[in-house]
Amino acid sequence: MAPFNQEREADVVIVGAGLAGLSAADALARMGKRVVVLEARDRVGGRTLGREIGGRVLDLGGQWLGAGQRRLGRLAAELGVATFPTYHSGQKILVRDGRVSTYAGTIPSLPVPGLVALHLALRKLDALAARLPEGRPLAAAEASAWDETTLETAARELLPRADVRELFDAAVRVVFGAEPREISMLYFLAYLRAGGGLMRLVEIEGGAQERRFVGSAQELSIRLAARLGDAVVLAAPARRIEQDGRGVVVTSDEVVVRAPYVIVAVPPALAGRIEVRPLLPVVRDQLTQRMPMGSTVKCIAVYDRPFWREAGLSGEAVTSTGPMSVVFDNGSHDGVVHSLLGFVVGQKARVFSERPLEERRAVVLGSLGRMFGERALRPSEYVEFDWSTEPWSRGCPVGVMGPGTMTGVGRALREPVGRIHWAGTETATEWTGYMEGALESGERAAGEVGARFEGRDEEHFVPS
Amino acid sequence: MAPFNQEREADVVIVGAGLAGLSAADALARMGKRVVVLEARDRVGGRTLGREIGGRVLDLGGQWLGAGQRRLGRLAAELGVATFPTYHSGQKILVRDGRVSTYAGTIPSLPVPGLVALHLALRKLDALAARLPEGRPLAAAEASAWDETTLETAARELLPRADVRELFDAAVRVVFGAEPREISMLYFLAYLRAGGGLMRLVEIEGGAQERRFVGSAQELSIRLAARLGDAVVLAAPARRIEQDGRGVVVTSDEVVVRAPYVIVAVPPALAGRIEVRPLLPVVRDQLTQRMPMGSTVKCIAVYDRPFWREAGLSGEAVTSTGPMSVVFDNGSHDGVVHSLLGFVVGQKARVFSERPLEERRAVVLGSLGRMFGERALRPSEYVEFDWSTEPWSRGCPVGVMGPGTMTGVGRALREPVGRIHWAGTETATEWTGYMEGALESGERAAGEVGARFEGRDEEHFVPS
Repeated sequence: MAPFNQEREADVVIVGAGLAGLSAADALARMGKRVVVLEARDRVGGRTLGREIGGRVLDLGGQWLGAGQRRLGRLAAELGVATFPTYHSGQKILVRDGRVSTYAGTIPSLPVPGLVALHLALRKLDALAARLPEGRPLAAAEASAWDETTLETAARELLPRADVRELFDAAVRVVFGAEPREISMLYFLAYLRAGGGLMRLVEIEGGAQERRFVGSAQELSIRLAARLGDAVVLAAPARRIEQDGRGVVVTSDEVVVRAPYVIVAVPPALAGRIEVRPLLPVVRDQLTQRMPMGSTVKCIAVYDRPFWREAGLSGEAVTSTGPMSVVFDNGSHDGVVHSLLGFVVGQKARVFSERPLEERRAVVLGSLGRMFGERALRPSEYVEFDWSTEPWSRGCPVGVMGPGTMTGVGRALREPVGRIHWAGTETATEWTGYMEGALESGERAAGEVGARFEGRDEEHFVPS
Repeated sequence: MAPFNQEREADVVIVGAGLAGLSAADALARMGKRVVVLEARDRVGGRTLGREIGGRVLDLGGQWLGAGQRRLGRLAAELGVATFPTYHSGQKILVRDGRVSTYAGTIPSLPVPGLVALHLALRKLDALAARLPEGRPLAAAEASAWDETTLETAARELLPRADVRELFDAAVRVVFGAEPREISMLYFLAYLRAGGGLMRLVEIEGGAQERRFVGSAQELSIRLAARLGDAVVLAAPARRIEQDGRGVVVTSDEVVVRAPYVIVAVPPALAGRIEVRPLLPVVRDQLTQRMPMGSTVKCIAVYDRPFWREAGLSGEAVTSTGPMSVVFDNGSHDGVVHSLLGFVVGQKARVFSERPLEERRAVVLGSLGRMFGERALRPSEYVEFDWSTEPWSRGCPVGVMGPGTMTGVGRALREPVGRIHWAGTETATEWTGYMEGALESGERAAGEVGARFEGRDEEHFVPS
């Protein structure tokens, strides 16, 4: 690690060594630019994190390669990180009001009118989302109307049946880590649009959870960082960014970096904690006050045998009872570690977080036991990861916009301020909130800065 | 000012020398406690600020003593700060779609059905607010339902007439500095309840704008701080709070203070930028991500003559045309300075903030000219204050909750975390968002900490 207060010079300084920051740095390095990446944590990978559990590295953070996520697939291939299909053979489980039932396919077993209602509502939502011009949700004719209401208000109208809405709400909570009432209808639709529709976001095969990475998704960041060598400085939270007509000075706990440009590749809620001089425009400052992180706790239980697979169950479950909202099979690629993965999300995550570990463990396992039987009560290992307690994430999977934010200050998401450019999955227009979105944002930000070096984008040269 | 890195000891350290922090410090000092108040700015007063304009000190921030605000009235009397009635004799002005009309009384001249609708809606809103148990809005039976929807959605139902809703929206924007779509219906009702109803919040006589302070409202803080002497440290932004079973260590740019307790008397959006070790509970951290500051620019024009008064106008105006939402007479107490005060608020303030000063001045004066005639175009002085560009406020008048925040994490507003107590007008249950609320919060926080010294409140001694 660099000695305290060391000064460095670079062409571009990047704040944040998640996939967005590292992919931007990598792209710029390929253009021949000297980069320095400042990472607050003592590790790279941001919201991805691998940990050895039961003898294999499993994911405590983002973990899926989705269908159609071509940047992520390409990067994995390039870095030699193998992928494998997410296990999903067999019946799925639905728990409503404490009653457990099983089903096949994507849509749980509901009374027929409920099924019809759900199908129609999902089609309606995807049709609404399709009305947003690609990558420019604010240009939609209905943008203002959709941004005045919460997703909960909209869903009540669209899905009047409580049993159907319960499932819908569970899906929303898992996708955003937030409650439907906390999310703007416009933001929700823009998110669907960026990811190709709600069904795609929640499905395994053909959806966002299609494949996994051997050795964890963090491996991508680890290998990108290895390529960048000592350009990546760990334990170096950026505290202050000063800019003038000539360049930026970024002060971290470890090192002070001077460069013509900086790319801030952390979520708005965290970017807002960096002191910027001169002050950022009001719309940008307001954005950082108005895009809170979702709340997600991942709970991983490891078992000696994959008893659910042996019973013809896929390991998937949706539940409105107990702390978790959804469960997935989480076995290692080689069949050595057998595991179930549960998500505690949204308001339940905030409450869960306050309980003692023993109690949390007991309620999660109790819930798994009701779904998968007695054997689920006795894992060989139980691991939890609460992203809201990570000071350099403050939540997961993504920053969320309530009503009014997108139309009010959303344009500040990507708009450079003088020599400051913005990356991070929150700024993506494709697969917002996913690893693919992080890569898209890194690619875009690197392109913006690259163009400024070549003088192709003179308009940005005026410092704010 | 204290030398860099000086260490001090105290019984209680207070972060923020606005009315909340100073009144808490003052109360604790009277109990015989040694206090240190850390203030980020080079002045005291927080969201109050006096500046000499035209030979008298006028207010650039909070400025009114409202009817029934007994703490504020008592404090002014105690500190010898005189008050005087807000000028409001004469006809008021309404501008809709560029058409100017005048009216008397509180309710603008609208077509009769509109008037009836507005009266009924205001009565309905105040009746809904009255259903919230005093000081405990979360205990209301409808709390969850009201917190799932935006005020805009609720207002569309309550006030279907666009002309009436325009006036309502203008009032909401001025009260919160935010758009109806950004505000939870529950938060709105709780705010009304705390202030005694919407009519009270928007009225002069009998309302929140009843009287003003000779020499500015900041004078209260200046005199409180004088009483506290060198206990108040300026230019000392608190950067880090560490706590353990024995006490807290608060590190600021100027001084490091050790004490058994700390009171953080700044809005949640700013409190969230202070590093706290160990980490705060998730609900508290989420609250700081979910309570953005409103946006308010005050525009003050000074004239040689009070030509509006001479023409039988009170100086009050409500407008949906142009940058401002409301205008007030702002003359000095002694009739020496003649002035109009306009508020640019909510989304208009964010956009306004980006325009060059000359343009802002021109549109504000042009708007005043349309209301009050040609003479308004030529002030002898024009002064603006944009609270969103103040790094130690980041907005005004108050932090606002969107849907889901109050029911989700609102309980973290006042709940002490170990040895950290919270004050600030956002935490008040009476007159939330007003100076009176700041004083109530300071009184409460000082009482909480005082009780802990006397061991009357042992439950709080357990560090989190």
